[in-house]
Amino acid sequence: MKNPQRILSLLTKITDRSAKVGIIGMGYVGSALAEAVVKAKFTTIGFDIDKKKINSINSLNQKKLSATVNSSKIKECHIICICIPTPITKSKKPDLSILKRVLTNVSKYLQKSQLIIVESSVAPGITRNLVLPALEKSKMRVGADFFLAFSPERIDPGNQKFNIHNTPKIVSGFDKKSLQLASAFYKKFVQKVISVSSPETAEMTKVLENTFRLVNISLINEMATFSKKLDIDIWEVIEAAKTKPYGFLAHYPGPGAGGDCIPVLPYHLLDSASKRNIPLMVVAASVRVNELQPQKVAEKAIEIVNGKLKNTKTPPKILLVGISYKPETADIRQSPALRIWQLLEENGMSVQYHDPYVKNINGSFSQKLTLKNISDCDVVIITTPHKKVPYKKFLKNGTPVIDTQDILRNFDQPNIFRL
Amino acid sequence: MKNPQRILSLLTKITDRSAKVGIIGMGYVGSALAEAVVKAKFTTIGFDIDKKKINSINSLNQKKLSATVNSSKIKECHIICICIPTPITKSKKPDLSILKRVLTNVSKYLQKSQLIIVESSVAPGITRNLVLPALEKSKMRVGADFFLAFSPERIDPGNQKFNIHNTPKIVSGFDKKSLQLASAFYKKFVQKVISVSSPETAEMTKVLENTFRLVNISLINEMATFSKKLDIDIWEVIEAAKTKPYGFLAHYPGPGAGGDCIPVLPYHLLDSASKRNIPLMVVAASVRVNELQPQKVAEKAIEIVNGKLKNTKTPPKILLVGISYKPETADIRQSPALRIWQLLEENGMSVQYHDPYVKNINGSFSQKLTLKNISDCDVVIITTPHKKVPYKKFLKNGTPVIDTQDILRNFDQPNIFRL
Repeated sequence: MKNPQRILSLLTKITDRSAKVGIIGMGYVGSALAEAVVKAKFTTIGFDIDKKKINSINSLNQKKLSATVNSSKIKECHIICICIPTPITKSKKPDLSILKRVLTNVSKYLQKSQLIIVESSVAPGITRNLVLPALEKSKMRVGADFFLAFSPERIDPGNQKFNIHNTPKIVSGFDKKSLQLASAFYKKFVQKVISVSSPETAEMTKVLENTFRLVNISLINEMATFSKKLDIDIWEVIEAAKTKPYGFLAHYPGPGAGGDCIPVLPYHLLDSASKRNIPLMVVAASVRVNELQPQKVAEKAIEIVNGKLKNTKTPPKILLVGISYKPETADIRQSPALRIWQLLEENGMSVQYHDPYVKNINGSFSQKLTLKNISDCDVVIITTPHKKVPYKKFLKNGTPVIDTQDILRNFDQPNIFRL
Repeated sequence: MKNPQRILSLLTKITDRSAKVGIIGMGYVGSALAEAVVKAKFTTIGFDIDKKKINSINSLNQKKLSATVNSSKIKECHIICICIPTPITKSKKPDLSILKRVLTNVSKYLQKSQLIIVESSVAPGITRNLVLPALEKSKMRVGADFFLAFSPERIDPGNQKFNIHNTPKIVSGFDKKSLQLASAFYKKFVQKVISVSSPETAEMTKVLENTFRLVNISLINEMATFSKKLDIDIWEVIEAAKTKPYGFLAHYPGPGAGGDCIPVLPYHLLDSASKRNIPLMVVAASVRVNELQPQKVAEKAIEIVNGKLKNTKTPPKILLVGISYKPETADIRQSPALRIWQLLEENGMSVQYHDPYVKNINGSFSQKLTLKNISDCDVVIITTPHKKVPYKKFLKNGTPVIDTQDILRNFDQPNIFRL
């Protein structure tokens, strides 16, 4: 068994940065990882099926980074990070088809001594029960011929303070060597690397982090609905509760949690739990509240427009302000604004949007926020609180504004509606 | 209207500490408040219906603190703090009977210029819709004749770091004067006093704080059940998740949330919401998970005993270690250990307990933790993680131990069971 040599050889390549790193999936997670890996002076190949993305990366002519659609180049890499999405189907079931497709390719081109790291979010057990058998179809064995680690991504798009370098990285491996190699790799560009005892522990850590967020966002949305009925300002309540120096963490109401992690991974969890007959009442309730949240916003708009416009035949015009799922990013994955858009159109409205980060989407273009454009709308809905937006413009004429983000809290005008 | 003089007069009495303070309800909250008020050099009268408690306070012969069962002494006080419990009935509905009884007395003895402060936890609206009308039965008017404030208690029994002095205090008043007076009073012994715009905001702040805790404890208990089925160590997962520097706050699994606040106030909230037809799915699910948690512990004990003892006729002996609802306190209110006790007895077991803080309860006495006593038991259940308990004694013989608190995590013995 040549394994001690294998690990030594890869460890040396990590230490002297001669290891070539492949990153499969050049979306938000993969691109951020690639940037950090390149910065750490590793030659990096980005893999994606999106040719436009590949061309755009290659057009940058970076010395250490190239991109390709050609999976066979996996052979050239010493370390392969899998950063593809693990979305949900329309019926809210885990869709692991992209992962399976990628694994078929990785298995096909798997080389001795390669280290495969899964960063994609999955339910506990997926790395062991899906990824490992797929890779061992190559007839190679983990721990002997190749190495396998799971290390959940913690990328937070738009976070100005925490990035890949200063956010501690959870790392797990299928055996000691896999863990040692993956840790050594991440230590080259992450300040703090934390080893856990199994891939399942690392998978569950990510599940817990995301589920915590979804549950607390849904809780505060529920509390906002209750407070609204009692004429209590939930935003003031949150500020007051925040003064408690222990046992509280502020979350804020809004049109619902978006992104590819927070509202998605709990469905993976629920699916896994339901297969084992484990009821998860709190998670199931939170997921449901989040599903219904965009509807609450749409209903408010419909209510306003109904009162205003029942005698006209032109469809009411709604302007969505902020289309990405969180501020200061162009990331529109699972954005509640898109769901609101859909609901409004289903109710016969004409929808436009403004977003300083998202120039166009589905054939629509971001509208300029001129006073004329605002006046032309029947309702403006502030969905995402980007800092760049000149919100005060909404105060200048009487256009009804649904402020889901409490941006206009200091302006007490009858045309401003809160959820 | 002599009101400007009234407020000035009481304000002066607060400033020069000549105001006499009455505290109604000398339980955990009232006693802690009395201690702080006395320390701030105000003459203080504690009111309670428990004569033993009254005698015990008076036997201390403190210069500034006396206690009485005589409600008419309310007349002598300038400031009256209501710190009585607002429990729930057996059918989990708010039980405001103690509050109503106290208000009848306060109203009866209400004097001009008195400041009444409610510290008890209630659903939003109770101060306005129940307390205020009860006090105005005196024919005096709030803001003119007397002053009324709501300031939720944030006492955390056993907390070594945060006490009444360094925990910011939320204060609200029915009018500007009430708010000004209550703030001035608390500023005499609390480092940071935060004014909010209405009693409802202050009431809701407390509801949000407690509900946040209950929801997150129930979430982690759910996650623990799921993890256990998958052979994942939830405690390791929590440690790993805690390394995320934003958007996560660790909560820990156990036999369920206890105390008079966290598991109680959410029922007040649910009752208030159901009267208004507002579904609170996340809160309802969390409350349910918390109700079922002691059952999970009891079932584990029954499972162990069934396997061990089906052929004997003497009832199996269970030792509960820790009977208070949280560590380093004698507070047994709504303690899940008591519910476990009840469930075990209902299943024909003989239950004893050990708790360094609770010497006796319902005719039972805290057992010594001798090796013999431990050996005599069929199952030991660690329910509350008091630091003083010599846990290593449970490792010395093979008595099965259900460790709900992961106290024995470093000892891998087959007699240790986790939830």
